[in-house]
Amino acid sequence: MRLRHKPWAKEKLTAHPEYVITSPAQKKTSWQEIFGQEKVLFVEVGTGKGKFLTEMAEAYPEVLFIGIEKYESVLVSALEKALETKPNNLRFILANVADLLDYFEENEIHRLFINFTDPWPKKRHAKRRLTHPSFLSLYEKVLHPEGEIHMKTDNQGLFEYSLESLSRYGFTLKNISLDLHRSEFEGNVMTEYEEKFSEQGARIYRLEAFKSR
Amino acid sequence: MRLRHKPWAKEKLTAHPEYVITSPAQKKTSWQEIFGQEKVLFVEVGTGKGKFLTEMAEAYPEVLFIGIEKYESVLVSALEKALETKPNNLRFILANVADLLDYFEENEIHRLFINFTDPWPKKRHAKRRLTHPSFLSLYEKVLHPEGEIHMKTDNQGLFEYSLESLSRYGFTLKNISLDLHRSEFEGNVMTEYEEKFSEQGARIYRLEAFKSR
Repeated sequence: MRLRHKPWAKEKLTAHPEYVITSPAQKKTSWQEIFGQEKVLFVEVGTGKGKFLTEMAEAYPEVLFIGIEKYESVLVSALEKALETKPNNLRFILANVADLLDYFEENEIHRLFINFTDPWPKKRHAKRRLTHPSFLSLYEKVLHPEGEIHMKTDNQGLFEYSLESLSRYGFTLKNISLDLHRSEFEGNVMTEYEEKFSEQGARIYRLEAFKSR
Repeated sequence: MRLRHKPWAKEKLTAHPEYVITSPAQKKTSWQEIFGQEKVLFVEVGTGKGKFLTEMAEAYPEVLFIGIEKYESVLVSALEKALETKPNNLRFILANVADLLDYFEENEIHRLFINFTDPWPKKRHAKRRLTHPSFLSLYEKVLHPEGEIHMKTDNQGLFEYSLESLSRYGFTLKNISLDLHRSEFEGNVMTEYEEKFSEQGARIYRLEAFKSR
């Protein structure tokens, strides 16, 4: 994703604590209390400019959505989308995914989305891929026993790696699509990136994974 | 695969018991005794016209290879290839894969190849796919604890199904390739079918699977 320097981004994010949490200290109670709604929690890691999550929040009012994004200059675009539609079931966290446990309790998340994250194609950068075992161990902790990981990417290498990494970690794979936009899958909500690259003919890969019960 | 009627096929197959076993009664002792060689056993289910297995037998003399094929008219082509090169580490079985346990003991097979088998695309035919759980339970029995399944196909639907079926059954996936012929994989031996369809630009999918230890 192209990063533009936006010196005003941090200020705008902190000016909207009703949508954006910028430090663990701001998360003192359960997400259900913060939202004031007793609903299940779906989380997107690397939420980017927020198209996916704001559309999901609108489509599924029975769910609470939280997006984690580390770049201020990117998250501010997601905030701007939220300020337009003013959803009451959506929040953002300005943080590294590695700090996931600062914000979520064990078994708290029912669904975790990993959409078009950085493929980090070089082997020596494998640890940074968001499906590396070190991240999977975080997800395993915060995922509800019946929780699921839903992943999409256009990057063949990242998808191959993720299938293997999830399988090796003990996740069971289901609803795999090796060409999502020419499949029978219904109700796909596209990210900004997905819209752009699928128009150019790129294959979109998708999987769901759950911990064997 | 196109099936030609060859009325003479059965006769030719039975005339070569040194290469072809046509009934369980012919398999009275261990494969190592039949071959007269103490080597590990690699088996291909649905071996077709035998290009893959005869080339593998030549490339890996330290391994015993057995191909299972149910169609006489197809297996006779594999036999003809063997009669040309006369490998001493290759045999064929004229049988249904469903009868695998008539020919193999528990833990006997170190590697099982599933190459370009019929995708049976209709849902009501899923039971016939050679990665259906009913077949996986047979493979699990005959596979050595350190044994592996190696699968190739050009059929996207069969590959998606197989990834899920193996994962759900408790196999761990590794070395997945979603475009084998444009990957870094070395030493690929092509089947007749693979040669023809990859030339036409078809993507070849490949996976390896093992039982979690």
